[in-house]
Amino acid sequence: MQRALKTSRAANFSAWYQEVVREADLAENSAVRGCMVIRPWGYGIWELIQQGLDRRFKETGHENCYFPLFIPLSFIAKEAEHVEGFAKEMAVVTHHRLKKINGELVPDPDAELTEPLIVRPTSETIIGDSFRNWVSSYRDLPILINQWANVVRWEMRTRLFLRTAEFLWQEGHTAHVDRDDAFAETMRMVEVYREFVETVMAMPVVVGEKTANERFPGADNTYSIEAMMQDGKALQAGTSHYLGTHFAEAQNIKFQAADGTEKHAHTTSWGVSTRLIGGLIMTHGDDDGLRLPPALAPKQIIIVPRLRNEPADADLLKYCNELQAELRKQTTLGAPIRVSIDTKDKNASQKRWDLVRRGVPLIVEIGGREASGGQVSYLRRDKLYNGEKAQSTVLTKDEFVAQVGGILDAMQNGMLLEARERMASRITDSVKGWDELKAHFGASVGDDEDGPSTDNPGWVRASWCRPDGDEMVKIEAQLAQLKITIRNAPLTQPKTFKPCIFTGKPGVEEILIARSY
Amino acid sequence: MQRALKTSRAANFSAWYQEVVREADLAENSAVRGCMVIRPWGYGIWELIQQGLDRRFKETGHENCYFPLFIPLSFIAKEAEHVEGFAKEMAVVTHHRLKKINGELVPDPDAELTEPLIVRPTSETIIGDSFRNWVSSYRDLPILINQWANVVRWEMRTRLFLRTAEFLWQEGHTAHVDRDDAFAETMRMVEVYREFVETVMAMPVVVGEKTANERFPGADNTYSIEAMMQDGKALQAGTSHYLGTHFAEAQNIKFQAADGTEKHAHTTSWGVSTRLIGGLIMTHGDDDGLRLPPALAPKQIIIVPRLRNEPADADLLKYCNELQAELRKQTTLGAPIRVSIDTKDKNASQKRWDLVRRGVPLIVEIGGREASGGQVSYLRRDKLYNGEKAQSTVLTKDEFVAQVGGILDAMQNGMLLEARERMASRITDSVKGWDELKAHFGASVGDDEDGPSTDNPGWVRASWCRPDGDEMVKIEAQLAQLKITIRNAPLTQPKTFKPCIFTGKPGVEEILIARSY
Repeated sequence: MQRALKTSRAANFSAWYQEVVREADLAENSAVRGCMVIRPWGYGIWELIQQGLDRRFKETGHENCYFPLFIPLSFIAKEAEHVEGFAKEMAVVTHHRLKKINGELVPDPDAELTEPLIVRPTSETIIGDSFRNWVSSYRDLPILINQWANVVRWEMRTRLFLRTAEFLWQEGHTAHVDRDDAFAETMRMVEVYREFVETVMAMPVVVGEKTANERFPGADNTYSIEAMMQDGKALQAGTSHYLGTHFAEAQNIKFQAADGTEKHAHTTSWGVSTRLIGGLIMTHGDDDGLRLPPALAPKQIIIVPRLRNEPADADLLKYCNELQAELRKQTTLGAPIRVSIDTKDKNASQKRWDLVRRGVPLIVEIGGREASGGQVSYLRRDKLYNGEKAQSTVLTKDEFVAQVGGILDAMQNGMLLEARERMASRITDSVKGWDELKAHFGASVGDDEDGPSTDNPGWVRASWCRPDGDEMVKIEAQLAQLKITIRNAPLTQPKTFKPCIFTGKPGVEEILIARSY
Repeated sequence: MQRALKTSRAANFSAWYQEVVREADLAENSAVRGCMVIRPWGYGIWELIQQGLDRRFKETGHENCYFPLFIPLSFIAKEAEHVEGFAKEMAVVTHHRLKKINGELVPDPDAELTEPLIVRPTSETIIGDSFRNWVSSYRDLPILINQWANVVRWEMRTRLFLRTAEFLWQEGHTAHVDRDDAFAETMRMVEVYREFVETVMAMPVVVGEKTANERFPGADNTYSIEAMMQDGKALQAGTSHYLGTHFAEAQNIKFQAADGTEKHAHTTSWGVSTRLIGGLIMTHGDDDGLRLPPALAPKQIIIVPRLRNEPADADLLKYCNELQAELRKQTTLGAPIRVSIDTKDKNASQKRWDLVRRGVPLIVEIGGREASGGQVSYLRRDKLYNGEKAQSTVLTKDEFVAQVGGILDAMQNGMLLEARERMASRITDSVKGWDELKAHFGASVGDDEDGPSTDNPGWVRASWCRPDGDEMVKIEAQLAQLKITIRNAPLTQPKTFKPCIFTGKPGVEEILIARSY
């Protein structure tokens, strides 16, 4: 059977991923080490992610701003944990001019900056500096802002969308009168992420709290949404942090409370990035390329006329244009249907495979027979899945127009259910103690720094006693040997707990253990 | 009479501008030299600019992408004119890590980059590098892409929105099979800019071609839209460049033509930036702050309930909510009306002045009388203009809801007409020769590097003979002494020309001469 890709997921998941990124025209490596070029189809997906989230941020009272790309080195140095967490991987601007010296263009020695500037790895410090000026009374709080921006973290090993030196993201930053208000915001936003990612991206996640060593540098609490990829690994798809008063203290964000006393604000931050597109690929992709949930498809339907360079082509195009106009009047998943006609100078079969690779939900092919018979022949991209042969369905044009909204809606739901079932089937709670944990994950440690890209056994859900200090250091070292981490402690917890998987002491909480990206 | 600002335009236009930026909550200086913080109200305006332009770009066949922030130094060096134009004002990244040395955080000497990276001042070179890979046959052309991004040019004297080290913009980049197709694109996009800026921003402009010395570094032709500010200066509000094959040659963007020969692609680029917001302020602002054309107002109507902390407040708020719901069902200028209720803990008069300064088109005030009488009292922001006393109009709620779309539409048109008349009245074509030009502009040279910020005499439209070589060098030196420049040669030209204003030789073209930002 013909497949659209050379590599299958089963053969080499990591190579398959890279092939999908390339063959679905999502992104490519650039000449700048670790930076990516996001191509139109990939960027179109990002625009839909932006629109969907932006609407939700505004509905929950947030406004967008823009803060400088550059952060003075001294700002980063203010918060001790923060500097530890970020100082090791940042792009540093040291000069503001080039000069030709001996015929070679070099940084001008006379144009060295007094204080080096950091290209933002995250903006808590520079935004906090504004908050300090914006806040004087409790009446000024809460401040609820967000920015869509590029950030840079100097990564040594990069992978398109998953880990690049520069990536695009949004970062929400808020300031509140007290812990309760800030904490409620932290939880509200992780829930906004869960709802968006599940509803629009059809990507099921587990919401939970990160353990102490996995927290954001400078946070009191970090919550994450964790998604399961088809290779059984976890992908942290979004985080929301309650920062306590750490940043407010480091940056002097104070206000006069209603009772007249002076207090430090409680701040939060939360973000998701272009990494979500990596999650999308590894959740829904198949051996023919990307599959897009309709809510996230830049085009939900592409009409391919079978042109033959003959006079009858005009009728064919007229029919396609009429069909497109009728489809555009239809609504699905809360928005008008996104449809276009592919008139590129390529043969229809080549176009079909291009569109299959790109994950277009419905591919409509119109030849002379369809045009003259008032019919529509279409292919459901989700149904190519699992090695079934591509099978077109034929409906009358009126039937298709009437049913298409429902078809797309069903595809969206179907993809979420499929991913949910896969996730549920690959989380086990029957692993007990280190030996079983080792047996569970150990066979597939592999050479990859992230652990092997295939044959991962999924996640383990287990009770633990929340060890700390030296005991926890030891546990982490053992986990690192198995290339696994604690992903989070899910918000949904049982009433009773098994003994701690690491220590055998009475359990107090359940955690998820997994390999991850 | 009470005014909302301390400084009037007449007293000190430049100080007035900065007061509007600050008092209308548009932007502020950041701790990073030359970089700005764009505040929510200012960013809301930018979002509407983005949405309006993005729709137009997509309607003209363009797709969005994203290219790396960093450009290898060697890329910039490839195109000779380009490097001359940009090398002198760029942020240079030289290190990728910080390190604590003697207790001080510094760029890690062991983490110096082999090749320095430039923070993009514009992306022709890095995008051209991708185009080279994307193009092999004439069938791959045209490539029509755009990106929304931040760029950095190290400016020594900065002014919020007008000239900052970092700013936000869009940059369109396209590649075509021949000059005709690329040139048509160049003209199409400058027309998109003109239409958008006039229709949505109510900012009249003159479209024309830049003279040789004012072209983009590396362009064959540069077209600009020039707007007139209320101080009589010109603001270049957008540019569109036909780049010939210069970049294609420097970057090896070649394709096989239909006739089998190998050719270089013809490329274009075009951009507008957050500078447009500076133009908006200086076109429409008055001595009470910003005035926003309704099409560009994040909120077109803000309802201010006159709350008194008493039980009757509940009825007042109910009435305001009903009004808001009815207004949201109305459409104006092609979109649903944007309205919100201001329930902040401030007195109504203070709120009114805040909203006046921000330029909210309609300020609706609802007290007990309006609520019980089924009425609406509103203030038109455009009518505060020119020293008239703020005068509220009272209508029944039904009347107001029925008429509001028309009122906002009329305000939009009125603001454009007002600015058009001002521009027309301040362009003279009666200046002849150097002496008259000197007399016209000379009295007001002033100390400001941009020329004086008040009492500029507007623009001169004059014929010239298109001098070049040494003759032109001399002319430019004389223009520089008067702190004036040739803005562009308008697309609309007369049939006959007066003698050249500089040389007295027969004229061949009309040009605009002005002070500018």
